This record gives sequence, structure tokens and C-alpha cells, in this order.
Amino acid sequence: MKVCGVIMAGGGGTRFWPLSRQKTPKQLLSLSGKDLMINEAVDRLKNITDEEIFIVTNEKQYEKMLKAVSSRQNIKKIMVIKEPASRNTAACIGLAAINIIRKYGDGIMCITPADHCIKNEQEFEKTLKTALKEAEKNSIVTIGIQPEIPATGFGYIKFDKKDEEKSKRVLEFKEKPDKETAQQYIKSGEYLWNSGMFITKATLIMAEIEKYLPKTHKGLTEIYKALGTEQEERIISEKYKKMQDISIDYGILEKSEKVRVVPGSFGWNDVGSWDMMSALHEPDAKGNILIGDVINIDTENTTVYADSKLVTVIGIENIIVAETPDAVLICSKEKAQEVKKAVEILKKQKRTELL
Amino acid sequence: MKVCGVIMAGGGGTRFWPLSRQKTPKQLLSLSGKDLMINEAVDRLKNITDEEIFIVTNEKQYEKMLKAVSSRQNIKKIMVIKEPASRNTAACIGLAAINIIRKYGDGIMCITPADHCIKNEQEFEKTLKTALKEAEKNSIVTIGIQPEIPATGFGYIKFDKKDEEKSKRVLEFKEKPDKETAQQYIKSGEYLWNSGMFITKATLIMAEIEKYLPKTHKGLTEIYKALGTEQEERIISEKYKKMQDISIDYGILEKSEKVRVVPGSFGWNDVGSWDMMSALHEPDAKGNILIGDVINIDTENTTVYADSKLVTVIGIENIIVAETPDAVLICSKEKAQEVKKAVEILKKQKRTELL
Repeated sequence: MKVCGVIMAGGGGTRFWPLSRQKTPKQLLSLSGKDLMINEAVDRLKNITDEEIFIVTNEKQYEKMLKAVSSRQNIKKIMVIKEPASRNTAACIGLAAINIIRKYGDGIMCITPADHCIKNEQEFEKTLKTALKEAEKNSIVTIGIQPEIPATGFGYIKFDKKDEEKSKRVLEFKEKPDKETAQQYIKSGEYLWNSGMFITKATLIMAEIEKYLPKTHKGLTEIYKALGTEQEERIISEKYKKMQDISIDYGILEKSEKVRVVPGSFGWNDVGSWDMMSALHEPDAKGNILIGDVINIDTENTTVYADSKLVTVIGIENIIVAETPDAVLICSKEKAQEVKKAVEILKKQKRTELL
Repeated sequence: MKVCGVIMAGGGGTRFWPLSRQKTPKQLLSLSGKDLMINEAVDRLKNITDEEIFIVTNEKQYEKMLKAVSSRQNIKKIMVIKEPASRNTAACIGLAAINIIRKYGDGIMCITPADHCIKNEQEFEKTLKTALKEAEKNSIVTIGIQPEIPATGFGYIKFDKKDEEKSKRVLEFKEKPDKETAQQYIKSGEYLWNSGMFITKATLIMAEIEKYLPKTHKGLTEIYKALGTEQEERIISEKYKKMQDISIDYGILEKSEKVRVVPGSFGWNDVGSWDMMSALHEPDAKGNILIGDVINIDTENTTVYADSKLVTVIGIENIIVAETPDAVLICSKEKAQEVKKAVEILKKQKRTELL
């Protein structure tokens, strides 16, 4: 069966504001200083898939996304699918699935977000190949990461320790825990980080969508019929907006009996917010990550991203500084998740030039 | 005797970098948001002097200074004196003194720095008028501030508590103390903050310069002879550069037996560095001073000066942020004095555009 990559790349990326904007969210940035995140995500799937990759993004990012991936001559086929509205991951994955079904009847979907950092690519490929084989047995196979620390920023997957298969039975999905709970999870050895990556046949995920999200399934079916016709764009636009705004985790994975998990350990990190820059850059002896034109005097455990001008930091600790031509952010690392609040304030103030 | 104001306004003001620069040091900035510091200093002396004010500045700031004070139509005479080099306050005050002697034979000099903040101007005038009278009795009369807190950022003056005159005998000048010493000073009731302001006859300060800084006196005498002649500029340039680079405090006041102190209490503050912005602006309920386009989420005791773009602060404490079109500073309040180190680094890097 055809193996396709599916990259979910429609996020607004408000948590990397002011560097990330609606038109250039983090997947279109080079946070690592090496390549755009979307291109790193594409390259990562090259050896696992049959070099056919579907990228689902939104209208605002579509042109930039097309341009970005046009540099990927090393991948045979890349298709960028445009969402007419943001409807969370269930609808997004459904849209990719019907495109694959239309083209190939069915296919194995290797589904990943666009904003991950993976240090050990060999081990990553090995884990995904295991998961691929398991997915062929008609399972939805999530990738669970062996937790290294009791992180409170990730969801967890509880799995059946006694299961001796390569993919384990999933007992429960858990939301981001508090510190104490996370410590218990680690101690028990029964929990993995939810990486947000999973492998499934396109027809299987569609069957589960039909079962658990029938309204979304109905919309997808109507779009499916319109694909390749003159009405395609109109129908997508009309039907997609009416779909349920729900994540694939909450809508399907937490309910489906087909879900299994393959544990992996390949230096994974979710680059979800500014405090995760340490996953992409090696900090100096004092724990600082200083990118761009920076003068540093007595600063510790601080991340500075200087985009357009000199940034001088003196005697500060545990701070994130992000400087762009029209906005500067100074945020304590503890509060890195609150950057989205600043973006909400700007929305309310209708300062669209800064969004 | 003629009463003249003398404002020492030649400082490079590196401690307000990046807002202050060599060509626009803090005396040429409006840190209060009301007027330029130099103009606030000029206005403050209006009622005390015979509306004749000498401003001593350096070559780099001369043109801007002339332009700034040209708006002061309310003062009869303002003369801006140009220092051909920075030679600290002893030479600076000598230069003003010989100009006054040449013009009037003698005069009372009300000498103040340009970078002070004074909240109670009435009380300030009252204190200076007392000091003027004492200065007429042939004393060098410093203004000592009744200390409100055990500040470690100011020098102190120890005075004779038993002295019943309006101006007290000075026992000792003390450098900036550590916290413990400052607390002892306050407890003893024998110490005042050294405001850097003092009143003296021009001929008296020249006599003391002759006694304690003979080389400087020799240079000043030669300049005095050249004043108003064709050689004036050449001689000043030649002689001034050779003068002793020493402060009036260290060179004269700490040694002279003519020094007395008048205590005052008029909401004085030395706006020496970014952490002193609280002397110029009323902080909000959380202790923040937010100037310009600022979004604030959960920030405390922080000063933000946003000059050219949006600055967003989230969850930070005790920090100074200063944003200008070509540089951003983020500094802990504790380390506000170290801003000058950043300027030194830029000098070494020969990044003159940022100085």
C-alpha cells in the first residue's frame, strides 16, 4: 500500500510571536537557523514514505508554503492542501485522507505536526517503520515518546505494559499533567509523551471519523465527491467551515478501539513555545541561547532572538527576548505560554499589522 | 554681588544608553516626558539667580545644547561654554569661574549638575537662598540632602551636628557606602546625601583651585588672559586638554577648609541611571513605569521605555527595558550601573554608530 506523509501545518503559531505571524507562523520560520521547520518536517519523512507528502495548511499561509516547499526537489510529489478555515486536526486529517483515497483508493498516512524537533533521525525512521507495519494490521498507531523528565507541557499516553506486541494497547490519553502527577507517570513506567504523530490507513481513519464524528464525515464525503470537479473550491469552502472544530485526539483517538502506541526514543521535542528553543540550539555554559546581534553581561538561562538590531542583556535570568522590526517581547520563561495572550490583546485592539 | 547659575552639562550619559548617546546625552533628553533635562535645570535656577546662566558642555553636544536652550526666552542671559575635552568637574567649574570673573569681577556661582530631579521647587529655592547668603560669607556651600532611605548610590557628607549656623561645618566627604554603612549613616543623623550642588564666589573657588590644583589654575589663568582675544579658541583648546582630570569633590571640596553644608529636603533625586526613572514618573500599582507603546501582562516593578515600536512584557520583575530604533536594552534593576559596560564593549568593537 502507498505510504504518504501528511504534515499538519495550519497552525497560527501565536506562541512564537512576535517572530511568528499569521502569514509566517513558526512552520515557515527557521527557528533552528538551518532550514524552515516545514522543510525539516518534509525531509524527515523522505525515507519513510513513498516520497509523496501532503501538507495541510490554511489560506493565509498557502502561497508562502508553496514557495517554501518548491525547494524540495528531493521529494517526488508534494501536494499542498488549503483549508478554507481552521477546523482543528480532525477535519484537517480527514481532508488529507479523502485526497489520498481519491488518488490511490487507500494509503498509509504518516501524520506529523510541522513543529517538531527530532535529534536522532535514524532512530526516528526505525520507530516509524515499526509503526507502519503495525498500521497495516488495521490499527491507528500513535508514536509515544519515552519520557526523559516529568514534563508538564505534553499530553501523556497510558499503555498496557503487559502487551508484548511491538505496538502496545492504549489504555488512556491524559491531558498535560501537573508536576506531581507527571512524576507519578514517570515512576510507573506506564506512560509515554503524546507526540501528536500517528500512522493509519486513510480508509480506517475515515471509518473512525464516520463512527465518532458523523457530521464531519458527512462534510468530507460531499467534498470527496466534488474533488476534481468545477465545484471543488466552492464545495470545500462551504462544507469545511461547517465541520466540527475538534482535535483528532479528543474526537477520535481517545475513543477509538483501534488505537495502539509504538514507544520511541529519538530526541523528540515539541517546539511549542519560546522556552523550547533549547531543543533547537545548544545553550552556552550559562544556559543562554543568544541568536543575532547580542551583547551579554552576566546573564543566565536566557534566550535572545535578535532579528533586526542590537539587543543588550545585563544581569537577567530565565528570560526570553524576541526582537523583530516592529515588536519586542520580553517574557519570563515560566510564562512562555502566555505569549498568546499578548496576541489576543493585539487582536482586540485591531492592530492587524502586528498579528 | 551678581548671582549666576552654572550648569555642568558635559556628561556622556552612558548609563542611559541606548536612549542617551554621545551627541544626545541625558541632559538633552526628556526623560520626564515634560521637557529636556537641561531646560528643567535652567528653569529651576531662574528665581534664584540674576537670570544669568552659564552652561558648560562639550563640543559634541554644543550645537544641540545651543538649540535646546534657545527656547528659554524667560531667562535674560544664557551662555553656553564649550569644553574642548572632558576634564571632569574641577576644570569645568574653573572655566565657568573665569568667565564670570572676566565679565563681573566676581559673582556668586550656583553650581548644579544637569541631571537632577527636584519635586518641591519652592523648598529647593528656599534652601538655595539660604546657601547663597552663607556663600557671601566666603564659604563654599554644598547642598546636603536629608536622606530618606539608606541609599548606596549616592556619596554622603558628614557634618557637625553641634554647629548651630544655617550652614554646618563639613567633617568628611564619604564615597558611596555599602548597605550596612548607609544604615549606620542614617541612624547617626550626622550624614547628608551629597547632591553635587554647591554655591561659591567665583574668586573663592579660583583661590582654592590655586591652592589644591595649581596646574589647573595655571591653565585657567592662561585661558583667562586669552578670553575675548583672537587666540581664545586656540588657547582654550591647547590648555584645557592639559588640565588635571579630577572632580571638584575629590580635588577641592574634600580638602578645602572653606566648605560648609546647608541641609535641604526638597524631593531631590539624581537621575543617574535607568533605575532612577521612578524619580521622574509615578509607578502604577504594581510598581511599573511604562512609557510608549507597551503591552503588559503580569509584570512587576519594571520600567519600560518604548521609543519606536511595540514592547510587550510578560511575567517579568525588577527589569529595565529601553527600546530605541537601533538598539534594545534589557537589564535587571540591580545591575543598572553596568549599562556603561555595554557602552565600553561597543567602543572596543568600534561600533561608533551606536555610541
